[in-house]
Amino acid sequence: MEPGPHSRPAEPGRCVSGSPGAGSAFPASLPSGAGAEPGSRPGTVAAVLPAGGCGERMGVRTPKQFCRVLERPLISYTLQALERVCWIKDIVVVVTAENMEAMRSVIQRYRHKRISLAEAGATRHRSIFNGLKALAEDQPDVVIIHDAVRPFVEEDILLRVVTAAKEHGAAGAIRPLVSTVISPSADGCLDHSLDRGKHRASEMPQAFLFDVIYEAYQQCSDYDLEFGTECLQLALKYSQTKAKLVEGPPDLWKVTYKQDLYAAESMIKEKISQEICVVVNTKDEESAGHLLKEVLKKKLNCVNITSTVLDHTGGDVQNLLTDQCYSFICVNVVSSDFQETQKFLNILEESGLPLLYPVVVVLVHCLDLTLAPLAAKMESLMWIRALAEDMKKRNVLLSGLLLNYSKAWWGFPAICGSLRKEGDKDEQKLQESLQQGASIIAALVKERSSALAGQLLLA
Amino acid sequence: MEPGPHSRPAEPGRCVSGSPGAGSAFPASLPSGAGAEPGSRPGTVAAVLPAGGCGERMGVRTPKQFCRVLERPLISYTLQALERVCWIKDIVVVVTAENMEAMRSVIQRYRHKRISLAEAGATRHRSIFNGLKALAEDQPDVVIIHDAVRPFVEEDILLRVVTAAKEHGAAGAIRPLVSTVISPSADGCLDHSLDRGKHRASEMPQAFLFDVIYEAYQQCSDYDLEFGTECLQLALKYSQTKAKLVEGPPDLWKVTYKQDLYAAESMIKEKISQEICVVVNTKDEESAGHLLKEVLKKKLNCVNITSTVLDHTGGDVQNLLTDQCYSFICVNVVSSDFQETQKFLNILEESGLPLLYPVVVVLVHCLDLTLAPLAAKMESLMWIRALAEDMKKRNVLLSGLLLNYSKAWWGFPAICGSLRKEGDKDEQKLQESLQQGASIIAALVKERSSALAGQLLLA
Repeated sequence: MEPGPHSRPAEPGRCVSGSPGAGSAFPASLPSGAGAEPGSRPGTVAAVLPAGGCGERMGVRTPKQFCRVLERPLISYTLQALERVCWIKDIVVVVTAENMEAMRSVIQRYRHKRISLAEAGATRHRSIFNGLKALAEDQPDVVIIHDAVRPFVEEDILLRVVTAAKEHGAAGAIRPLVSTVISPSADGCLDHSLDRGKHRASEMPQAFLFDVIYEAYQQCSDYDLEFGTECLQLALKYSQTKAKLVEGPPDLWKVTYKQDLYAAESMIKEKISQEICVVVNTKDEESAGHLLKEVLKKKLNCVNITSTVLDHTGGDVQNLLTDQCYSFICVNVVSSDFQETQKFLNILEESGLPLLYPVVVVLVHCLDLTLAPLAAKMESLMWIRALAEDMKKRNVLLSGLLLNYSKAWWGFPAICGSLRKEGDKDEQKLQESLQQGASIIAALVKERSSALAGQLLLA
Repeated sequence: MEPGPHSRPAEPGRCVSGSPGAGSAFPASLPSGAGAEPGSRPGTVAAVLPAGGCGERMGVRTPKQFCRVLERPLISYTLQALERVCWIKDIVVVVTAENMEAMRSVIQRYRHKRISLAEAGATRHRSIFNGLKALAEDQPDVVIIHDAVRPFVEEDILLRVVTAAKEHGAAGAIRPLVSTVISPSADGCLDHSLDRGKHRASEMPQAFLFDVIYEAYQQCSDYDLEFGTECLQLALKYSQTKAKLVEGPPDLWKVTYKQDLYAAESMIKEKISQEICVVVNTKDEESAGHLLKEVLKKKLNCVNITSTVLDHTGGDVQNLLTDQCYSFICVNVVSSDFQETQKFLNILEESGLPLLYPVVVVLVHCLDLTLAPLAAKMESLMWIRALAEDMKKRNVLLSGLLLNYSKAWWGFPAICGSLRKEGDKDEQKLQESLQQGASIIAALVKERSSALAGQLLLA
């Protein structure tokens, strides 16, 4: 895979144990100790990602791993989750021959690293076996098996199953059962129900010493390859290895039905909306930008709101853009100045940030209705529309927000009663405007609706 | 329960077998044949809805059945799904003593009918038993047991389990397993995995001949009441009744985790966005309203787009409002006329439609930029902002949309080359504007974001 014209920023979530390798996609096995690995023993770790499913349960024709979430195929999120774990040296994605080209273009477009491809077999087990064969030459010590349609896997659970696999030979994530499991009789009636407390759902990721799982696959019967569903069972049956079961978090769930795709989209939107950066043009603590930041903090109390003063070289922004923030609220920074905005947007684009997620940029302009009519101000900001149209193609969602900010009396010591009253009224208006502005910003950040980009909104 | 000031419209989805009773909440049992019932034998049907859970799996403090989806508690959606099935004569909701008052206010606020309350026990089985006791005096022939947190239950599956219960004594919905089920050994390792093909997930709804399930509960042990999870198993063990298993649709799933709540919200949004009504003020097929309707039809090809010509008495709108449409696009109907809009909104509010779901109203105004400047037009429509603020409190989300609609040359036979060119350019602009307008409308209808109500958007 050729590196793209711009490098992509690091993924969200820090790698606990060193930085990824130099990016050579293959071979997977690196000399022991080339990076810090999980567990006490050094050893290489690779992953196999079966992605040969056809998605018939989703009720759509696109295989579910290729269904788009925020315009990006689901499998790309899963690859992102795996590749940000630097001690996973190689990721083998197993896809059907007909999806091979689509998969290659996903890897290229989203600049995934350390990926190689293998061809899927007719069943899940045959596909996994093909993935293992692709690793057999430079075999890793441990192999992770994960699903393409479980995009929320975190480093913590990967580390726990790998560590357990090193100790026990095999390990897999489990979850409590949500529904009681029953066994039907041949006539479609209840034969018996299983004790929910004594059973668990077997989820992914799973991890194995490479020898354990590879030998199991080499020895197992055609019946197993055809009808089996559980890798842990193969390790037990053919390699006499009792897998350690590791309790996983609820967001390991498998995207199976249409409602799961909706859930995945909302989870991803929530995740990327956890950081908002307010870009201001002054250190003045009483400026509109700082006030807005405080209101946003209160309104979105689980979201991390940072602010930065934009210096004219754009240096500060450069730093910001490595911080996995996908929402920027620019307050008066570039007041009506098309060129300054364009510069900011160029830096944003060059950072590669909009490659993975739509980036929201709200240009907030303060407006004193006692000084200028609204219509004239709006007219003067119509350039935002044209610019937004252009930026939308680059996955940046630009909007304008006009904040009614009459500071005439606000913060001024009242001289007499009527002035005080006017001042109170103005301050109340300002507060209302800030509150409404924060609500609008929250909606734009949360929804990331491209249809609404380019609008001039009013608070 | 006191009837509210306005009646609520019928729920989405038609009742296949007659209309609901006169609304007396209790007693449940009606004379046989009082309405058409499912199956060949007449008989009364009641439902028990255990809602005593505390939602610890959701990771939030509110019990999941009271979590809000589009500002309405989840349990209200489930009640709505059951009460629109007219042959269910009584619905017993089982809640903890501490949630009794909250439940009463849900019933009152959303005007639920045919509901009575029972107090929850310490476990699920004890709660269901309490629900059955509440029905014991005027016992129905068949009782449905359903979960408060499965809001997408349809009449079809209810009918199928009830019919099967009449024949077999007990019946329950099942689904294929998504994950393989395993049995752990005492040391937290894999003991064995179950054959996924031979097991099913037991879901809800379930239905029983009242005697079958009531006797089972009366006879069952304290251990069963304390640790059991499966009603079908109780019927088998204590009433020697082998339940018929009925394959249910995927949207029967149980809202258990945070991602399920997200999924539920998206499913509900999708459901109520399936109907859009375009309200126009002219039958002219080349009017902006009709053109916009055609573009919307193409863009949202799974959505039912209807249109109506508003007559000045509001009569047509009255008819529309019984049709479970929650999105209205009013094109030029009330051009700049505050009073006309207010009248339309009053009819809407009086219909009770916004009681269950936020209703989206987009006031589309055509604007010929060659005739009037944008700013002046926007200024003249600022009343929409104030009105929207007021309507938001009534669960109506009002927005304005300005459509760039220069009809100067459009549709006119070209007289000379340059005019033709101008005309082509104008038509292209018109088409772009219609496309963008349709995208904005689709986003407003789909997202139903109250923070964006009151904005004047531009296409």
